[in-house]
Amino acid sequence: MEDKWSRWGLDLHLRPGAGRGLRAGLEHALRDAVRSGRLPPGTRLPSSRTLAHDLGISRGTVTQALDQLVAEGYLESKSRSGIRVAPRPAAPPTETTQPSPVTLPPVRGIDLRSGFPDLAAFPRREWLAATRHILQTAPNTALGYPDRTGTIELRQALAEYLGRVRGVITTPAHIVICAGYAHALRLVCQVLHHHIACAGMFAFEDPTEPDYPRLVEQMGHRARRIAVDRDGLIVEALTNETAVVVTPAHQYPLGVTLSSARRVELVSWARRADGFIVEDDYDGEFRYDRQPVGALQGMAPDRVIYVGTTSKTIAPGLRLAWLVLPSSLMIPLREATRWDESYVNVIDQLVLARLIQTGELDRHVRRCRTRYRRRRDLLGKAVTRQLPHGRLFGIAAGLHAVLRLPADADLEVPLLGYLAERGILVEGISSFYHRPEESPLALVIGYATPADHAYSSALSALINALRERMPGDNAAGCGRWES
Amino acid sequence: MEDKWSRWGLDLHLRPGAGRGLRAGLEHALRDAVRSGRLPPGTRLPSSRTLAHDLGISRGTVTQALDQLVAEGYLESKSRSGIRVAPRPAAPPTETTQPSPVTLPPVRGIDLRSGFPDLAAFPRREWLAATRHILQTAPNTALGYPDRTGTIELRQALAEYLGRVRGVITTPAHIVICAGYAHALRLVCQVLHHHIACAGMFAFEDPTEPDYPRLVEQMGHRARRIAVDRDGLIVEALTNETAVVVTPAHQYPLGVTLSSARRVELVSWARRADGFIVEDDYDGEFRYDRQPVGALQGMAPDRVIYVGTTSKTIAPGLRLAWLVLPSSLMIPLREATRWDESYVNVIDQLVLARLIQTGELDRHVRRCRTRYRRRRDLLGKAVTRQLPHGRLFGIAAGLHAVLRLPADADLEVPLLGYLAERGILVEGISSFYHRPEESPLALVIGYATPADHAYSSALSALINALRERMPGDNAAGCGRWES
Repeated sequence: MEDKWSRWGLDLHLRPGAGRGLRAGLEHALRDAVRSGRLPPGTRLPSSRTLAHDLGISRGTVTQALDQLVAEGYLESKSRSGIRVAPRPAAPPTETTQPSPVTLPPVRGIDLRSGFPDLAAFPRREWLAATRHILQTAPNTALGYPDRTGTIELRQALAEYLGRVRGVITTPAHIVICAGYAHALRLVCQVLHHHIACAGMFAFEDPTEPDYPRLVEQMGHRARRIAVDRDGLIVEALTNETAVVVTPAHQYPLGVTLSSARRVELVSWARRADGFIVEDDYDGEFRYDRQPVGALQGMAPDRVIYVGTTSKTIAPGLRLAWLVLPSSLMIPLREATRWDESYVNVIDQLVLARLIQTGELDRHVRRCRTRYRRRRDLLGKAVTRQLPHGRLFGIAAGLHAVLRLPADADLEVPLLGYLAERGILVEGISSFYHRPEESPLALVIGYATPADHAYSSALSALINALRERMPGDNAAGCGRWES
Repeated sequence: MEDKWSRWGLDLHLRPGAGRGLRAGLEHALRDAVRSGRLPPGTRLPSSRTLAHDLGISRGTVTQALDQLVAEGYLESKSRSGIRVAPRPAAPPTETTQPSPVTLPPVRGIDLRSGFPDLAAFPRREWLAATRHILQTAPNTALGYPDRTGTIELRQALAEYLGRVRGVITTPAHIVICAGYAHALRLVCQVLHHHIACAGMFAFEDPTEPDYPRLVEQMGHRARRIAVDRDGLIVEALTNETAVVVTPAHQYPLGVTLSSARRVELVSWARRADGFIVEDDYDGEFRYDRQPVGALQGMAPDRVIYVGTTSKTIAPGLRLAWLVLPSSLMIPLREATRWDESYVNVIDQLVLARLIQTGELDRHVRRCRTRYRRRRDLLGKAVTRQLPHGRLFGIAAGLHAVLRLPADADLEVPLLGYLAERGILVEGISSFYHRPEESPLALVIGYATPADHAYSSALSALINALRERMPGDNAAGCGRWES
């Protein structure tokens, strides 16, 4: 039978079965023959009667298959001349280009990069229980298009949570649920574009995560950097920017907390310059020496755009974040999102609302805080005892610390290479600086990522490698950071 | 005790308990007093010893509370002059503006608007089971930042599914997971902007969902409309557009299928004009008279940007969609999303991949297809028997049909008002046209939305209201659609 098929240029991948399977097999073979050029454009097909007889299948099956291919544009049916292969205007280029992957594959070895919580602590049981509750109780109407700003349930839960835990002063109507921090930042760019009716200037801290100024530039605004010292952003360097993006609770990556004097200065700047403060409160829940410092937003709800996320408290994979906007930006928000839809799954929004309402999120954060504090203490002890010439910064809060090393910045590349050879992945601080060449030699150590059982050995591996590479007698002091 | 507190301007909302509760109460009261102005800037606070004695609480508690407020910037501590209320540069405007809601509240009554599947059919049990499976089996590393184009598991599952069900020819590397159709369309705008290095011209069908041309214009491109006849888009009206957005399987909202000749013409146009076809395959799984017409993408994977979504097959609330891109657009995609993160929850991606792999999605679609076909048949019978002068279009596929009525378009507004008074929500077709005043009189009837048990009565209510309002003897024929 395959001979007969191949006579018509048909390469039957699927062994024909019966009924629908046979028809599908014929369609597949026909489509393939047309696409591959084995049946060139203009080829006249035999009548369905002939084809059915020749292939030994029913005429109805053949007719159905041909009708389908006509409807799809592979064949054309003209009343008098029967069925032909439709013209193919130009041969489609073969799709052989294998695009290279867009992001890097996951790393094997000891991962001490910053920006990740302990993924082993993900509250799987609680997330599943809340999902079950939502799927058993949510009305059908909840599964339609959600409000563009997010479900009212999650915005209500967040207004209460952020007020209680972070001192944020807001209402559910001022909250917008976003699909992660990058989405939130894009939305801020759009909202401010509508607010000032032109492109603006964004100030970022220096050092900072370099992707964010670039994202803002891609959105059509300009971006500049403002230096950070041990009190946080040097506010007096601001002029008449549209917005300044800051990490007041735990500067990323330096780890300093924005001082109270600078907080007042910053709000003062915003009022004077008619600018906005974008408060990136990425790890504000984690403070170890006392209860968390309240959000800057609480001091000036009219001037601060607050951004929070579950990426550090639960997991980045959830892609959940929120904006808290001043009242004056609600109309620009509506303009910016007028033709949009919500970007966040309703079920996930309701699940997070439930975890907040039932206190599960608080319990989870508390468990993580205890765990991270223990890890931070181990890191502190190890450095004090085994790297007497290194100094740790930013250990009061968050999921990472900065280890300043007694040498010059041009050692960073060989040092990171040396560590990588030993399977230790850690970032140098220079890539966070606008001028990497002026950066000090320091490592940004994310201590939350390794699994609990692997943390001690990860820490030992890092410290031992640094001791080998950075003997104490080479110590050159900590340079300008000492001042 | 409240007397003593109020002496310091403190209005104690929280009754002080013991330990941490007491400290939190004092902090709350102090913050409130500073914010409200009861403790004006510059006010010197008594020493912690005095305050502790006066309030009858331990000095340690007072010190902790004051430290916290200093850290938050409400108070300032200067070595010699003790603790003062920090300067408040300008009184923050009171946040009393209650922003009006961004979207309309859900409708009560009989909802026959198009664009929704039957939400009562949401596969709650299957979604929960897949979530359980994923939460029990996914490795911790899966919960980190996903690839910007989506998880490989979902892209693999979709490449197989789309090939099998829709005739799409692609690889997982050409698929991008998006947070709904609007996100996908924004991404297309960005990708094509990078590809042609300037703003472009997008053609849309007329009629079409009007938000999408507006979104494209907001993204900096221009947009025009091209008329649709009973064979679909009138391809010869295209010139040198950057892209044309089409709904080949079931034109939205007219419901016609793009004919095979037009498919060939359209691909030919794209090759000649170096343009792209954006195939919005929003309801391609639902075809009632035969198996679904394969996607246009299968004819020209190098020229078609394919967009699919779960909004019609499962529920819009999931906010899940996907792009299938030609190879030539993979580098522009990488440029456009270089500073971005994925916008879609990893768990949801893995759940959908699982539903595809286990065949649950196929079973669900099959169940829905049977259900919708029954509803479509009921609609068809009702119109034939009870509205002999009305005519139904677009009933071969999808979740909606167009009912052409024998009267002029200027009757649309009073007719919709008449229906709304009877609690029947349905759309007129005019709002989908670029020039609403030239539109025919027709209703776009979404027949998937009402619950199964409510469908017959919803249909009767609609038909009866139309019979009252549109007596047969007023019939004016169906005008230009007859031609």
